[in-house]
Formats: sequence, structure tokens, C-alpha cells
Amino acid sequence: MAESFTVTPWEVTGDIDYEELQRRFGTTPIDDALLRRLGGYGDLHMMLRRGIFYSHRDMNTLLDEYDKGSRFVLYTGRGPSGSTHLGHIMPWILNKWLQDVFDVPMYFQMTDDEKFLFKDLTLGETRSMAYDNALDFIALGFDPEKTKIILDTENIKTLYPIALKVSKKVNFSTARAVFGFENSTNIGSIFFTAVQSAPAFLATELQGRQVPCLIPCGIDQDPHFRVSRDVAPGLGYPKPSMLYCKMFPGLGGGDKMSSSDPNATIFTTDTPKKVKSKIGRAFTGGRVSVDEQRKLGGNPEVCAVFKYNFYMFEKDDRKVEEMSDRCRRGEILCGECKAALTEKINVFLEGHQAKREEAKEIIGSMAFEGFEW
Amino acid sequence: MAESFTVTPWEVTGDIDYEELQRRFGTTPIDDALLRRLGGYGDLHMMLRRGIFYSHRDMNTLLDEYDKGSRFVLYTGRGPSGSTHLGHIMPWILNKWLQDVFDVPMYFQMTDDEKFLFKDLTLGETRSMAYDNALDFIALGFDPEKTKIILDTENIKTLYPIALKVSKKVNFSTARAVFGFENSTNIGSIFFTAVQSAPAFLATELQGRQVPCLIPCGIDQDPHFRVSRDVAPGLGYPKPSMLYCKMFPGLGGGDKMSSSDPNATIFTTDTPKKVKSKIGRAFTGGRVSVDEQRKLGGNPEVCAVFKYNFYMFEKDDRKVEEMSDRCRRGEILCGECKAALTEKINVFLEGHQAKREEAKEIIGSMAFEGFEW
Repeated sequence: MAESFTVTPWEVTGDIDYEELQRRFGTTPIDDALLRRLGGYGDLHMMLRRGIFYSHRDMNTLLDEYDKGSRFVLYTGRGPSGSTHLGHIMPWILNKWLQDVFDVPMYFQMTDDEKFLFKDLTLGETRSMAYDNALDFIALGFDPEKTKIILDTENIKTLYPIALKVSKKVNFSTARAVFGFENSTNIGSIFFTAVQSAPAFLATELQGRQVPCLIPCGIDQDPHFRVSRDVAPGLGYPKPSMLYCKMFPGLGGGDKMSSSDPNATIFTTDTPKKVKSKIGRAFTGGRVSVDEQRKLGGNPEVCAVFKYNFYMFEKDDRKVEEMSDRCRRGEILCGECKAALTEKINVFLEGHQAKREEAKEIIGSMAFEGFEW
Repeated sequence: MAESFTVTPWEVTGDIDYEELQRRFGTTPIDDALLRRLGGYGDLHMMLRRGIFYSHRDMNTLLDEYDKGSRFVLYTGRGPSGSTHLGHIMPWILNKWLQDVFDVPMYFQMTDDEKFLFKDLTLGETRSMAYDNALDFIALGFDPEKTKIILDTENIKTLYPIALKVSKKVNFSTARAVFGFENSTNIGSIFFTAVQSAPAFLATELQGRQVPCLIPCGIDQDPHFRVSRDVAPGLGYPKPSMLYCKMFPGLGGGDKMSSSDPNATIFTTDTPKKVKSKIGRAFTGGRVSVDEQRKLGGNPEVCAVFKYNFYMFEKDDRKVEEMSDRCRRGEILCGECKAALTEKINVFLEGHQAKREEAKEIIGSMAFEGFEW
């Protein structure tokens, strides 16, 4: 039987069954016990409460170490292949929460090499996108004292020895099985996963002692970190722990927001007018007519507008539930929901865009090893 | 029919048929016309006169450009996996002649990453061998003002963007066909050829104009540079020209000197006593008894002692011929030849070892981009 959906770091197609994906990858559900434990460190973030971050690897080991006084380092990243959209910043928001709650340092890796290798882009283009994307990351308020941005082509001298060690432990068969590579895959792409592994082991290398690492990111990145985790013990590194989120949905009703459909994607630099127009055309769970919707109610489960509230823009769980209930009962129409969401997004973007401008002042100080942007 | 010999950058086995190898690789014989042309720039080096450097790619194109005023850059290298032996320095000696005759700059690449990936060595070990090997290179007298030593892990920031461009143009099928990789080959080894290509294009990248490159090296390296040459036009780089030599023979009569048999290998740091002992046990073309040798004569063609004179230690062509003739006529015995060769090697090594010590004073100034050894 053909698989009905595909999730790799470079391709997400089909309707994702997240439970099934978890089984495929062999990750562990974030259960109530783990949520309670996490809630003991600080007010549980809505992305954890709502199961948006829903799967993990070895979180309890990481927290056991933390409780014994061993602080971990956070690591997440971005493949700079275009403008930042809401789907990109979603997992970064949880990273920010984790940095605040656990008071830990963080590495943010910009894989300009990866996007050069996998896309029809020049190194100049991926580098300039990296700068642009980094502004969005910084705008979320990471502690500039504790956060370093890695740009692969700039910091490769430090990453390369670690990547070499990883790459020596991974053969082509494994890379093919994990990533679905073919004989036509270029040799840079085949090697790349070793470079993505490197920041997970960077603190351990630099400090010369076992520093645990937590990588919160989209579950589509699990293939990379399965490799990292497999090779870690043989290299004397601790296995990184993982926190995985679902993909941020597209406005068209699809499972993943994608830059390839700009009308179904809210970019962080969109104007209020653009946001209004995009949300206006969003896919909803509404009925064919107002009458019918009043009578039968809508379906928030398939509604992009509802999902946007659920994933990011309505922080109050009670209000989310109310929104869902009122929709089902036909008490609220799509137009109202769209107007309210547009307003929320535009308020968020106004603040974000201002912080994005301020980020230009501090981006230099956050460059790992002080490279020049 | 199974092939009777194998030559790859990592494996040389069987009796090498150099004509056949040239056909396999598709390289061009260095013919009399090319020798005459090269002789027009300076007294032809004995390694060219004697066909030790015997094959090439695009030498005439390179010389055409040179005649029009376009100076090329020389590039050769060493995979630091052990102590330097005579087989390693042989091609460097021709590089030195080329630098003198054409007055051109040179890059010497130490592939500490390669040897880490392909051998059971740590990065610390390959780095320390790189330092050691570089001393032998410098001792040959390269112009310190015009010669830069690249150490891959130190200079990777400059090499990496070029390697990425190369790697994007080479797929796994090609790498497998060219190098004989298998599914069990590690992903670092698969990528590595891109790093070995990089110095061929470095001058062009750094100067922002087409700088021709000449790579004189052992013919076992041709697989790498076939790849470099194939991808060059698509990347806007000139195809490097190649000058290929045969392998330096082992003392045991084999086709290639190998560190894995230290008794059949003269290292540059060997003491006079060690050299005497190793040459004493060398394989020769002598007969079973003195009487028989006087009567039937010896066979210089299979004699390691004769080959050492021919490849490196007897610069006078007339004397080489005389040596061969006298051997065939039974006028000279193996003991005499061995004593004479031991003397020549020890005279060479005495001078070399002194220059090797002096090299420690200038190695720092020859590090590409000023890395610290």
C-alpha cells in the first residue's frame, strides 16, 4: 500500500496523520505526566497545552539531568530559502519560552549551505535570506547574551570537525534509508546531515564536557536528529533530546504553510492590507450560505482561520473553545472570524516588524564567533 | 575478465600497466612534441625526460595561455596519514622545477580531513602528520613568497563554498562510478572529492578572474581531477590541466612504495644506518650466485636499486644507461649498486633533514590565510 503522506526535511505532502508519523519515526507522545513535569518549571506554554508540540525523544532524561544541576543548551534552526512566514516562527516561539523558563543558552543554525545544495539558489541568495530570516528570529526576544546565531558557511571551521566525525559514522545506505536519497542525489546533499548534527554537539566540544542539548523543532526534521542521536554515543557526545511540533497549517486548508503558495502564506513582513486580503480568501469550515451556516453550524476542525487562532493567535484556551463551540452552533460566521483574526495578526505583525527593525542593531552581536553579516 | 590491477586515490594493487591505465583514465601521453615544448621554458627535468611524468591533460592549452601572458597556479597536495617517504616527495620535486621554470605561485593542500575519513586516525593525528609532512615539502625549496600550504580543517571556510558548488554538480552515481564507492562508504568520504577540487579553483575565486591551474601529481589522483574538470565549465572555472607521474616503486619490487611495509620504504627521516639496512635487503635483478651474474648479467628492469637511481638518485642520463648496460653485461654486482645507492640516498637525506629543520622556522609564514600550526 502506498503511503498516503510523506514527511522528510525537504518534502511534506499528503494529509499528515501525526499519530502515524510518530509511529513511523519512533518518537514518544508528550503525555500528561510529561506535561505536568514541564509545567513545574513555568506556566505551560499553549503550544504544549494544546498538543501542537506533541512528540519527543528523551525529554525526561534531559529534565533529570537539569534537576541534578546540568543545564542544557537549546538548538534550533532555519533553512534560509525565502522570506520568513508564520510557520517558521511557530517553533521558535516555544524555543523562546524554553529559554526563559530554563534560563539556558541557545544556538540558532542558519543552513545556507543546505538551501544552496537542495534548491535552485546561489550562496549569495541563501546568505542574504539568512540575514533576513535571522531578524525574525531575534525579533522574538531571545536573550542576546545567551543566544548565538550560526551561519554554516561562516562558522564552518568550527562545525566541520564535528561534521567530519558524524559523517565518518554514517554510510550511504543509512543516509538513503533515512532521507530517501537516490543515486541522482548530489554528494553535498548526502553529506549535509552531518553539518546539521554539528550544533547538537557544539557545546560539548567547546566546553570539553558533556553538555546536554534540547532541539525543539518541526517533526519533519526528525530524520536528521535520528542520525545525530544514533552516532552520538560512539563519538562521546550526549544524545540530544527532542521536542517536536506539528506543521503550521496553510491558509488554503493544507497541512503545511508553504512559501511556494504566497497567497496561502502570511509572511512576517506582510502589510495589514495583504494580511486582510489573504485571510479574506482563507479556506474555512463554513457552509455554502449564511442561512445554512446559521442552521447547521460550521466545522472548525478543517478551518484555517480557526487553526490560526489555535496554533498561535488566541492564547486563551477558554476563548478557543468558545470560538469552536459558537462556530459549530452557527452563532458566528466566517466573515466575523476572519476580521477578528486579521486584526490579531496585524497587531502581532506591527509589533514584530518594529522588533525586526531593532534586531538590525543587535544581529551583529549575536553572530556566533563574531562573523560579519 | 578481472582487471589485473587497481588504481584509485585510496588503493593501488597489482602490477600497474601504465599504458593501460592511461587508456582507462583517458589521459594523454606526454609525447616528444610536448617534451620539446616544455624544454623550451627550461632544461627539461629528468622526470620528464625519462617518462616518469608520462601522461597529461590539456598541457598545451595551459602553455598557450601562459605564452599569451596568463600565468597559472600550481596545485598539488598530500594526504597526511603517516611519515613522508621518497614516493611522496617525488612528484613534489617536479612541482619545484615547474615553480622555478615558470615562476608561478603554488598551493599545497594537506587533506587531514580525507585521511581522518578514510583511515583509522583521529583528526589530531592527521593534523600532526600534516605538520610533519609539510616540513618535507618546504625542505624541497619552494619559494616561501609564492607558496601557500592549505590545511583543510584550518582553511575550510575558504574551501567550503567552492566545495559546495562542486558537490552540487556531482551525484552519487558519478561518485560511485569514478571512485568505486559502495553503499557502506561513509558520507564524508563521498563528499570529500569536492574538497580536493576546491584548490584547483581557489585562485579564480580569490582573484575574481579566470586563473589557469596546473596539477602535477600521481596518476592515482586522476579520479578526483576528472570530477574537477567535468564540473569546471558549469561553474565558470577553467578546467585544471594535469601532469601525471607513475608511482614510486617499493624496495620489495612492488609498483608503489607504501608506508604499510616500512622495511620496503625509505622515510625522509631515516638514519644512514636504517637506509643502509633497507637498501641492503632491497629486491634486485641479480642472479642466484656471483658466478652466474658475471656470466649471464642482471636484470635492471625489475631491480628496485636500479629504479631508485632512475626515478630519483642518478640525474645523469648517460650514467643511468651505463649502469643498466654494465648490469646486463654482468660487470657490476648488486652489492656494489646497493652501496652506491645507499651513499646517494644518505647524502640526499642529510641535506634534506637539515632543510627540514630549517623549514620549522618558515612553516608559519607559508600557512594559507595565516593559520597557526
